[in-house]
Amino acid sequence: MEESELATLQRQCDRLLAQKTILLTARGESDQPEMGVTPFIRHGDALFIYPSRLSAHVRAVMARGQGQFLLIEDEQAAQNIWARVRLKFDADIDEIARQDSLFAPLCDAFAVAHGPTMGVIRDFTDFHMLRLRPRSGVLVTGFARAYRVEGADFTITEHLKNS
Amino acid sequence: MEESELATLQRQCDRLLAQKTILLTARGESDQPEMGVTPFIRHGDALFIYPSRLSAHVRAVMARGQGQFLLIEDEQAAQNIWARVRLKFDADIDEIARQDSLFAPLCDAFAVAHGPTMGVIRDFTDFHMLRLRPRSGVLVTGFARAYRVEGADFTITEHLKNS
Repeated sequence: MEESELATLQRQCDRLLAQKTILLTARGESDQPEMGVTPFIRHGDALFIYPSRLSAHVRAVMARGQGQFLLIEDEQAAQNIWARVRLKFDADIDEIARQDSLFAPLCDAFAVAHGPTMGVIRDFTDFHMLRLRPRSGVLVTGFARAYRVEGADFTITEHLKNS
Repeated sequence: MEESELATLQRQCDRLLAQKTILLTARGESDQPEMGVTPFIRHGDALFIYPSRLSAHVRAVMARGQGQFLLIEDEQAAQNIWARVRLKFDADIDEIARQDSLFAPLCDAFAVAHGPTMGVIRDFTDFHMLRLRPRSGVLVTGFARAYRVEGADFTITEHLKNS
């Protein structure tokens, strides 16, 4: 891949990572996938979410210790509705306990990124601070434009035929 | 539930059904969920999608004959990023064969709804016309505002505690 093409792709990836919410899915209690959405932040080499266990998809990712995640441009922003720009990846998940020294600064970072709701839900014990460590995934930027990404910094490594 | 509240909820549901694309997930070949997105249309008492089998999530929903689906308002349109309005439902899936009398009118309806790309992909045999028959699901309109929906017309039947 040429340097200039790679730089363009990396910018598209960064734009997706600058979004506010992430979609997730994991195998649920009934063995069927459960899907949901939640705000996220990037911090260090990981992504963090703070969702409630009352939702089936949250119990599913916590029980499995992993999940599939999707960042996707808004429908209104899509140039071609058949090929919304998106980044899909698998990630390992672990929990940051409330007594962990990371917990408070992460809550603060959520409040800065996503507003005053965090002040309300911060002390709700059905909410859990989860760290996502991305393994690998696919960046799709159009028809026949799918690229393998690797690791927590989503390095673009390969042009794929299929997504 | 009061009549006026029900009417408001039904309008929110209708707005989601007026969107252009739908997210889907099903258990993939490796037993892990696969997630994707594709344009859809509503026709009669069903929804239809026309995705390519080259994608793992499409092979997954076709192999299982069912999947979980999500319609969700754009991030930019969300009043509260912690509670994007969304409709999640399980649906049975069957294929409309190319020789079926429904196939051509459905392709035409896709072209009207989603533009000239349909003219390009209509004859690509890796694309398949799939019918979704919604069983039941959940409409989420805010914090603690989750409602059970039933059937292909997404009738709101119950206020839920959890989503």
